[in-house]
Amino acid sequence: MEPRLCVIPGDGIGQEVVPVAVQVLRTVLPEVRYERAEAGWECFRSRGVAVPPETLDAVRRCGAALFGATASPGRVVPGYRSAILTLRQQLGLYANIRPAASTAGFSPRTGVDLVVVRENTEDLYVGRETRSGDVAVAERVISATASRRIARVALRIADTRGAKKLTIVHKANVLPVTDGLFRDSVREVVAGWDGPSAGIEVEETYVDVAALRMVGAPESFDVVVTTNLFGDILSDAAAHWSGGLGVAPSLNLGDGVAIAEPVHGSAPDIAGTGAANPAAAILSVAMLLEHVWERPDLARRVTHAVGSALAGGVHPPVLSSVRDTVLHLLESSDGGTS
Amino acid sequence: MEPRLCVIPGDGIGQEVVPVAVQVLRTVLPEVRYERAEAGWECFRSRGVAVPPETLDAVRRCGAALFGATASPGRVVPGYRSAILTLRQQLGLYANIRPAASTAGFSPRTGVDLVVVRENTEDLYVGRETRSGDVAVAERVISATASRRIARVALRIADTRGAKKLTIVHKANVLPVTDGLFRDSVREVVAGWDGPSAGIEVEETYVDVAALRMVGAPESFDVVVTTNLFGDILSDAAAHWSGGLGVAPSLNLGDGVAIAEPVHGSAPDIAGTGAANPAAAILSVAMLLEHVWERPDLARRVTHAVGSALAGGVHPPVLSSVRDTVLHLLESSDGGTS
Ligand SMILES: CC(C)[C@H](C(=O)O)[C@@H](O)C(=O)O
Ligand SMILES: CC(C)[C@H](C(=O)O)[C@@H](O)C(=O)O
Repeated sequence: MEPRLCVIPGDGIGQEVVPVAVQVLRTVLPEVRYERAEAGWECFRSRGVAVPPETLDAVRRCGAALFGATASPGRVVPGYRSAILTLRQQLGLYANIRPAASTAGFSPRTGVDLVVVRENTEDLYVGRETRSGDVAVAERVISATASRRIARVALRIADTRGAKKLTIVHKANVLPVTDGLFRDSVREVVAGWDGPSAGIEVEETYVDVAALRMVGAPESFDVVVTTNLFGDILSDAAAHWSGGLGVAPSLNLGDGVAIAEPVHGSAPDIAGTGAANPAAAILSVAMLLEHVWERPDLARRVTHAVGSALAGGVHPPVLSSVRDTVLHLLESSDGGTS
Repeated sequence: MEPRLCVIPGDGIGQEVVPVAVQVLRTVLPEVRYERAEAGWECFRSRGVAVPPETLDAVRRCGAALFGATASPGRVVPGYRSAILTLRQQLGLYANIRPAASTAGFSPRTGVDLVVVRENTEDLYVGRETRSGDVAVAERVISATASRRIARVALRIADTRGAKKLTIVHKANVLPVTDGLFRDSVREVVAGWDGPSAGIEVEETYVDVAALRMVGAPESFDVVVTTNLFGDILSDAAAHWSGGLGVAPSLNLGDGVAIAEPVHGSAPDIAGTGAANPAAAILSVAMLLEHVWERPDLARRVTHAVGSALAGGVHPPVLSSVRDTVLHLLESSDGGTS
């Protein structure tokens, strides 16, 4: 069956980087068929809904989507919730895979090569908040099922990476019940694993200590598995070492459905100026090639092309210069469609 | 009234660094009277309680304490909760002040000079967790009262620092109710402030973006005000820039009572080897001098002595070499008791 991609540019620079990533994908895998769909803050403003039902249908139908970015209203708007959160919840995208790796000549440090595997459906992201008078309460939900599920994703990734170490990040000293459950569930899956990474070195770190290490010793991480919000924080911190949010990709993965998403936001300050870096969106497409369409060969070609483009120096206008270099490298290398 | 200090060495290297910090304090402020008290994991093991009632009484009586470190059992032990958490809750130590500043010749980067002002009583630290079957839930509590209170502490610190910028860190895009309340409460206090920092530049950042900035642009922060767990994570990340946990002090502050505490843990791996850096404990005492005993002059002298000791190079055995240099510098500078 031919691969299909649901294209959701979203807001701000999402409208600029997504077309570039699609152009790259057309170059390496021409047989992909496309559907376009809407989501985000502009969609909410014009249609009253941030993720229309047709969008959910389109993503399900395609099995893969590329989402650009969503603006944030900056205030509480009744009925509005960030589109990407709705997509994750509604489509059961339970894993968020966020790699960070040094690119020689571009990143501020060499030797970093890690991936944060973030649980993507629960924790404080369940959207259960109440307020009574001057006191507000949010629920943080951790289940054994979701914790085991994310552990399996982390170990599958460890298997393919040939990973040397799995770091379980939690805060069980303060949250013995919820994070104790998370930690124990992960440990259980690790103990029973019989893939190539069976017997992998396993370490546990409190999230605060992990944050310190992410600043001072990012090369000490390989595969990191953690809960939703800690994964959000640690993967953004890690992004610095690959070169910032402009080059940070991610993949939201469920069963039979996935959404690739550059980690950056809609960046209203630079939207329309051509200053947005399309690398994160292109690398997100590479994650679809690897994890969804089972074309690790093409994923590697795209990733290498982006690495070379960045290493060669990024000149304004960034959007078109990175695009042109990447396309040029891919077209000149052999077998564009192979 | 003469200043009093309740000395609580706690576990592991707490037993080593606390006596050094006390020695330093004796040098600059001989009139301090001391009481000794117990708390921590060893205390729990021998007496069945991590923070005995006499310890709480002693801290209240003294109004100031120095707490070393507490070990963590590494598993859920019925009835045990980290001693420092109990002290914070029981004594209403609602603010946790965590500075991070570069020391020329020692820190990995120059130009960093920030303070994280962390709410210290609520958020996920309220200890309300339940489990039913395979699903665990923790409550995250945010109140307007505590949020306004921590905002006032942050602004008072901004006042004395001559701060240029206040950064409010939250995650209101995912937690509009709890973190919306936090953000709005802080904004309200800022708007009504008439101290020297009235009109200070105020910025807001999501915690994930703040973590990224803490890695890549720590000098872009001045005073940071945030909720409990985000403060825990960000202050540990910030500690890298001052030179790591070995030099990271903190002050837990309430009304009429305060506990100074090096951020590091009990470090069982180096306990007894003399490798522990006493700088964090000494700098924590300097925070008592500044914020509790109103001796900013002495606080500065101690801080400078530590800075010089670190800049001169830290040689093993770290504990005694830093101690000896700091004591030597303080004794040779004029007017030990000024
Ligand atoms: C936009 C926001 C809701 C989102 C999150 O917190 O997950 C973003 O920070 C991310 O990491 O994708
Ligand atoms: C030991 C632990 C409970 C504590 C916390 O999370 O507050 C520590 O990390 C700190 O920052 O003082």
